[in-house]
Amino acid sequence: MMEILSFFAVAEKYKAVFLDSYGVIKNHKGLIEGAQNTIDFLRSRDIAIRILTNDASRSQQQQAESFLKLGLKGIDTHEIVTSGMMAKQFLQQKILGGRIAYLGTENSAEYILQSGLEHVAIRDVQFDAIDDISAFVFLDDEGFDWNTDINKTVNLLRRRNIPVIVANSDKLYPVSRNDVSVATGGIAKLVENMLTKKFIHFGKPDTQMFMYAYDELNLSGSFSKQEILMVGDNLNTDILGGNKFGLKTTLVLSGNTSAADAELQINASGIIPDYICASIVS
Amino acid sequence: MMEILSFFAVAEKYKAVFLDSYGVIKNHKGLIEGAQNTIDFLRSRDIAIRILTNDASRSQQQQAESFLKLGLKGIDTHEIVTSGMMAKQFLQQKILGGRIAYLGTENSAEYILQSGLEHVAIRDVQFDAIDDISAFVFLDDEGFDWNTDINKTVNLLRRRNIPVIVANSDKLYPVSRNDVSVATGGIAKLVENMLTKKFIHFGKPDTQMFMYAYDELNLSGSFSKQEILMVGDNLNTDILGGNKFGLKTTLVLSGNTSAADAELQINASGIIPDYICASIVS
Amino acid sequence: MMEILSFFAVAEKYKAVFLDSYGVIKNHKGLIEGAQNTIDFLRSRDIAIRILTNDASRSQQQQAESFLKLGLKGIDTHEIVTSGMMAKQFLQQKILGGRIAYLGTENSAEYILQSGLEHVAIRDVQFDAIDDISAFVFLDDEGFDWNTDINKTVNLLRRRNIPVIVANSDKLYPVSRNDVSVATGGIAKLVENMLTKKFIHFGKPDTQMFMYAYDELNLSGSFSKQEILMVGDNLNTDILGGNKFGLKTTLVLSGNTSAADAELQINASGIIPDYICASIVS
Amino acid sequence: MMEILSFFAVAEKYKAVFLDSYGVIKNHKGLIEGAQNTIDFLRSRDIAIRILTNDASRSQQQQAESFLKLGLKGIDTHEIVTSGMMAKQFLQQKILGGRIAYLGTENSAEYILQSGLEHVAIRDVQFDAIDDISAFVFLDDEGFDWNTDINKTVNLLRRRNIPVIVANSDKLYPVSRNDVSVATGGIAKLVENMLTKKFIHFGKPDTQMFMYAYDELNLSGSFSKQEILMVGDNLNTDILGGNKFGLKTTLVLSGNTSAADAELQINASGIIPDYICASIVS
Repeated sequence: MMEILSFFAVAEKYKAVFLDSYGVIKNHKGLIEGAQNTIDFLRSRDIAIRILTNDASRSQQQQAESFLKLGLKGIDTHEIVTSGMMAKQFLQQKILGGRIAYLGTENSAEYILQSGLEHVAIRDVQFDAIDDISAFVFLDDEGFDWNTDINKTVNLLRRRNIPVIVANSDKLYPVSRNDVSVATGGIAKLVENMLTKKFIHFGKPDTQMFMYAYDELNLSGSFSKQEILMVGDNLNTDILGGNKFGLKTTLVLSGNTSAADAELQINASGIIPDYICASIVS
Repeated sequence: MMEILSFFAVAEKYKAVFLDSYGVIKNHKGLIEGAQNTIDFLRSRDIAIRILTNDASRSQQQQAESFLKLGLKGIDTHEIVTSGMMAKQFLQQKILGGRIAYLGTENSAEYILQSGLEHVAIRDVQFDAIDDISAFVFLDDEGFDWNTDINKTVNLLRRRNIPVIVANSDKLYPVSRNDVSVATGGIAKLVENMLTKKFIHFGKPDTQMFMYAYDELNLSGSFSKQEILMVGDNLNTDILGGNKFGLKTTLVLSGNTSAADAELQINASGIIPDYICASIVS
Repeated sequence: MMEILSFFAVAEKYKAVFLDSYGVIKNHKGLIEGAQNTIDFLRSRDIAIRILTNDASRSQQQQAESFLKLGLKGIDTHEIVTSGMMAKQFLQQKILGGRIAYLGTENSAEYILQSGLEHVAIRDVQFDAIDDISAFVFLDDEGFDWNTDINKTVNLLRRRNIPVIVANSDKLYPVSRNDVSVATGGIAKLVENMLTKKFIHFGKPDTQMFMYAYDELNLSGSFSKQEILMVGDNLNTDILGGNKFGLKTTLVLSGNTSAADAELQINASGIIPDYICASIVS
Repeated sequence: MMEILSFFAVAEKYKAVFLDSYGVIKNHKGLIEGAQNTIDFLRSRDIAIRILTNDASRSQQQQAESFLKLGLKGIDTHEIVTSGMMAKQFLQQKILGGRIAYLGTENSAEYILQSGLEHVAIRDVQFDAIDDISAFVFLDDEGFDWNTDINKTVNLLRRRNIPVIVANSDKLYPVSRNDVSVATGGIAKLVENMLTKKFIHFGKPDTQMFMYAYDELNLSGSFSKQEILMVGDNLNTDILGGNKFGLKTTLVLSGNTSAADAELQINASGIIPDYICASIVS
């Protein structure tokens, strides 16, 4: 019933392709076999590439290096857009003084919070000296002790009504073929439920990353939204966000959404991709 | 505790001001007294003005005429941004064939759905000829019979899995000092609950209107986000959206949020404006 | 994979059977063919019967008469438990003075609100004389004009902070093989969303009806929960509620949940019936 | 505006009083000063007492001992009703074979899961031998490593579609005057969000505990619902549940709801107690 198309046949009709990373280019075992070939095909047709990933654990540079390490050549740093970059941009624009407290790794704090402001891990926050804390950021699901630091976050945010930023709104991420792990967005949601407050979330399906990629793309050419194809494995982030931003969308069945579930999930959610492909390599 | 500032003193520090309409410039009685003076002040300082309103019942032109009718001079058509415009843009980009069914007035259908495609009011839909219906739009809370047309919408959307667009996501709007009315977004939410599907919503706090106003503004000048002030009476739409887009935000107490409630609502929601002013005229 | 059992073989192991009505005993076309035979079988084995239905449009007596009219003999009035009875009981216990305003038919108001207190349809409420209104009841999806009376309800409940009772929490009900209609619970949810308040809901999956049936059953015998089988076509009301109350549960595939969807819905929801039968007649 | 009544004057009109524990009888510092006097007063008037607490960490016996240790005399074991007892009852009625996996302390597992079935802490679950796991229980927020065992729970419940029981649905609990801790119900909600499944929750505001206390009370006398007063510090659990069960309700201002917030929260939530008292000792 549902027609599975060749990714090459679909992609060649567009001037630019936006690709999700996990489940599209790579998975828990490494690079998806044949990914290099697809990237080379797009380059050979002069189709612009951008990679849009909900990730705040690594900087743009670290992401680019990580693709190289996996064996994928030719991805340029400026072609990568992460939800962490959106959070960083927001902090630079809106948080102009004070200290920024965070939940996450030192590494993610380093690159996201490098705005001239001091930052402090939640475990190092002293509750008798919090008046200068001006924002809180959920960065990552690692780098802290869940047993103590989640509660400490709740209690800090009960004492200080400050902007709270979620640098990656994904609720979970895959760690192997069968298993998942609670992600930053899941922990942030737990805290949001405790406090019944509204945090500021970054990451697909929100349109900021699409907008950023679109604006940056148009610095070096002229691309209308109809000329751009968004490719993702997740209906609720990639396809919903791409549709809403006005792009054409392709669901690939190589990640979060299996061939067996796709039609059902599309009908149940009402989130409808323009195309469906087995993967970006077929 | 909460400092109430003069709007003039706040606004004159910015190169552009984005204003919500209802509760800021006008209310159920008409124009807010002194609004013309504030607009004139902004013009005299060469501060650019854009009006961002969650409204899909009237076109940009009709909105501009309506300000004139209320007695507010000098608002240009291109300075108005409505959620209906966003819906229209989406439909033009994404829905390229078939018929568009809708819930709303003939007038709103006229201007939003003028994309070369045929449109049909839900009451005129024949269930034996719906295969060519390619999208559904919630336009307005008027122009149909609630007793029959809401159910007919539910049943159409059970038969056809098509993109569903909500041209104004507001749940309610004020009709007098004390009374409100269920708005388009409220009816759409009811239908979404029935179907457990995800519709595509337009309107603040989503960033599309901010992005549109920002891009359009930068066609005729160079404005960074830090140079723009968003002014609104509603924490959940104007201030949340403005904050998330990276603008400075001012809550005015002349509409949805009363002086008595402001501090409490800010603390309860965690949505924090950069400034608070009694109104745009003080 | 999923084993479909004979209802007779399952039921004969129990001392009492609780049956949902719509989708189990009857459907949009009338009585389910063979229902009389099943009722007779249960009687012949001395298995007690109770019918638990989310319905507030008709009294216990009217429900019993309606089964007779459909051709089902031998259902006694006291064997019927409706969500409307629960609402009535609540009002008698908790609302001891003032007038009760309602949304619904005159008939449902008659039987539910017969507690010595005056009742008034929302359309007849005068906003200058509402100080004595002591409760509001969502009774039915008929008997009022949706275009005006839903808004009037919202505005009454903005003026008066009083207990609000939802006599049937179902969001929708079937009207034909393909079509549904928004039910009382759906309208109540819309108003709840407008006001961000919590109403008092009656009907499965809440345990009141189970508790009522269980207590009433034990007036004339001694039944433990393990000796009672709940039979329903709806995972979210019949099976969830029955499980939570500690009864054994049977999902029948003759109503809301089709054979094609059952396994999937059970896996997706985590609501697990003890048995699955095609219907009560097979 | 809101009238604060004497607890003694209110209570003496009833034949039985149901008391929440935390925030009513005790708080983070220990027994509320004067609590013994109030209990003695109720005894002297032959007013029956039951204590209804959302707690699954200690058995009925351990709860009674704990009151004695705090210095409160004369609370009998059978007068205590906990959400853990409800979970235990459910497991005994519904889970008749296999092993029960759990998140919580060994102590809570001991008393709740003592049903002849083997139980296993999530940390000891081996994923290659899970076919006999027949239910999962969220018991407590202690007794496990949050860093690993929450994820392990998510992944177990992705592999096995089994009944999941939440023995205490509270999202948080107070640990000092200013600080709270995420409770079992909060962790369960996190996992529920990950899986988008529906767990079976025990604890107020659900009616099971009220029903249990009511039935048990009527073993030794004849009490109608109108003759029972529910006393609690929490609108969303004690008052909502008490109202829904048909009891009269008293909000006390000695715990979760401060005098400053009470009127506001009542208006915002629509959850309306019949009486308001400063505490049970005034």
